[in-house]
Amino acid sequence: MRGVIMYGPGDVRVEDREDPTIVEATDAVIRITATCICGSDLWPYRGADRVERAKMGHEYVGVVEEVGSAVRTVKPGDFVVGSFVISDGTCEICRAGFPSSCVNRVFVDGAIGTQAQRARIPFADGTLVATPGQPDPDLVPHLLAASDVLGTGWFAAVAAQAGPGRTVAVVGDGAVGLMGVLAAKQLGAERVIAMSRHADRQELARHFGATDVVEERGDAGVARIKEMTNGLGAHSVIEAVGSQESMTQAIGAARPGGNVGFVGVSHDVQLPGQLLFFSQVQVLGGPAPVRRFLPDLIQLIWDRKIDPGRVFDLTLPLEQAAEGYRAMDERRATKVLLTP
Amino acid sequence: MRGVIMYGPGDVRVEDREDPTIVEATDAVIRITATCICGSDLWPYRGADRVERAKMGHEYVGVVEEVGSAVRTVKPGDFVVGSFVISDGTCEICRAGFPSSCVNRVFVDGAIGTQAQRARIPFADGTLVATPGQPDPDLVPHLLAASDVLGTGWFAAVAAQAGPGRTVAVVGDGAVGLMGVLAAKQLGAERVIAMSRHADRQELARHFGATDVVEERGDAGVARIKEMTNGLGAHSVIEAVGSQESMTQAIGAARPGGNVGFVGVSHDVQLPGQLLFFSQVQVLGGPAPVRRFLPDLIQLIWDRKIDPGRVFDLTLPLEQAAEGYRAMDERRATKVLLTP
Repeated sequence: MRGVIMYGPGDVRVEDREDPTIVEATDAVIRITATCICGSDLWPYRGADRVERAKMGHEYVGVVEEVGSAVRTVKPGDFVVGSFVISDGTCEICRAGFPSSCVNRVFVDGAIGTQAQRARIPFADGTLVATPGQPDPDLVPHLLAASDVLGTGWFAAVAAQAGPGRTVAVVGDGAVGLMGVLAAKQLGAERVIAMSRHADRQELARHFGATDVVEERGDAGVARIKEMTNGLGAHSVIEAVGSQESMTQAIGAARPGGNVGFVGVSHDVQLPGQLLFFSQVQVLGGPAPVRRFLPDLIQLIWDRKIDPGRVFDLTLPLEQAAEGYRAMDERRATKVLLTP
Repeated sequence: MRGVIMYGPGDVRVEDREDPTIVEATDAVIRITATCICGSDLWPYRGADRVERAKMGHEYVGVVEEVGSAVRTVKPGDFVVGSFVISDGTCEICRAGFPSSCVNRVFVDGAIGTQAQRARIPFADGTLVATPGQPDPDLVPHLLAASDVLGTGWFAAVAAQAGPGRTVAVVGDGAVGLMGVLAAKQLGAERVIAMSRHADRQELARHFGATDVVEERGDAGVARIKEMTNGLGAHSVIEAVGSQESMTQAIGAARPGGNVGFVGVSHDVQLPGQLLFFSQVQVLGGPAPVRRFLPDLIQLIWDRKIDPGRVFDLTLPLEQAAEGYRAMDERRATKVLLTP
């Protein structure tokens, strides 16, 4: 089969790779219908993370081709959405709602690499969720979004305790930030403030439910959010970047007793203890436990209540993955969908 | 009146100070029945915080002598317990349960200084709570503890979501850590692990409800907590020190999806973003919103259900405050009560 390999920064190739097969009784092998490039794939692409001949990709939807003898909840022919983290679904951490920290966790990225035609998914029951039937083709991008960006934005909103009566600020206007806007809106937030200075992303943010847009960043951004909230700050802040500036901005924009949900993968971030102490903001983040939310997210998409797939603004055949990386790196695209 | 002044590191004196009077209509003036020395007073005493001729003390119980015309909930003659943070009780942050981050917040320490015979307490309604009647003398130390250490330990336990079915680890065996043990027990925690290597504090921890004691610290301490919890870590961790080591230990000892409540005043702490991200631990801390808990804590003490005053192991007249500081600095005492 064909699949994407990143040889080093800026060097993405599509090559022949071995076809996956069932190894463990809990495995499934899926034929991938759609996959995509993640903002986090840009870290190694830009040299910020080390990379050497890595199988890329961790977002995927597809059709089950084969399952191991112990798999109970999905069967050949099922259309499935999977989490970007493999989880057994049975350990205490999974049962507590944090499958992305499962004791048997495997990150799909690197270990499996779903920018490919097929993939072996370990712990299929704990990782995949079947859709109610075969999806109409136009639903596929929306379902694909649930695999990571939507699930991640949703977790950030839940971690930030977005909900009725709350003002939610969103730091970061990439795909995850936009999904955070959508999630905050769906969770019933009263006011959703997107922090963005790109017209196209502002427009998408408004489409997903943003009630306000703030263009300022850093201290000026914090000051603007405070100005809009009686000097107090937002009840909930979603952080979807992962830099020192964005984390500082997120904590600064939240009111005391408020909540920050952070899902940007931290890069060289150091949080001063005194900032956390005196801001009195509750902080929860990390790799999103997407599997927890998948059943509900799939249903919302199936019922056409949300259209998260609108974050994809470029679709390319898998063979042109390198161009997809370039487009995202150069900010010509927010998020690129690949069809194997 | 007489009151404590810290002139600089190691230099504590009791001197004549001006008698307080009502300034604002929301003020109360109280005659202090008992006050004490806090672990946080040792930071400036040891030169870790800058200090110059500061009025010391922020924990206090006493009798109201006079109130301003706008005060509604306490009156002359009432015995009162006050929070170590002045709060108006009416702002949005107070009403949300975080009076220690009140928009009109004043730290009693420095601004007022309750290691003294009297004190003016601004926003009396938002800061003080009257006891059901005049307390028996033996209840006074317990009520005094509620003013900070008990309220702070309680907040840490609440922030760490200590409760039924949960294992709680407590980092720090000073007065606040011990109060965290008491709070975790009262909140119904299944297992309370005190991390301590001092026999006397271990004994007190067990008295307050610790089911286990761990002597190891740092990485070894984390490893021991994991060993005791199926390799997962505690559900709840209370951090009551404020150092880099204690914060790292607290986050490390919590399981993914678990909660750290941190109340040690942060000193030179830098939290790596990746640690917070990949540990997936929820973190909430800061100056404890003691006023939120005071009514319940006073009732528990009044009904003789808890005896937090046992953390005081040395009582001295106010005039001997300098000796009290020395005793705590040299670890001859855990916590010193002063009688004006």
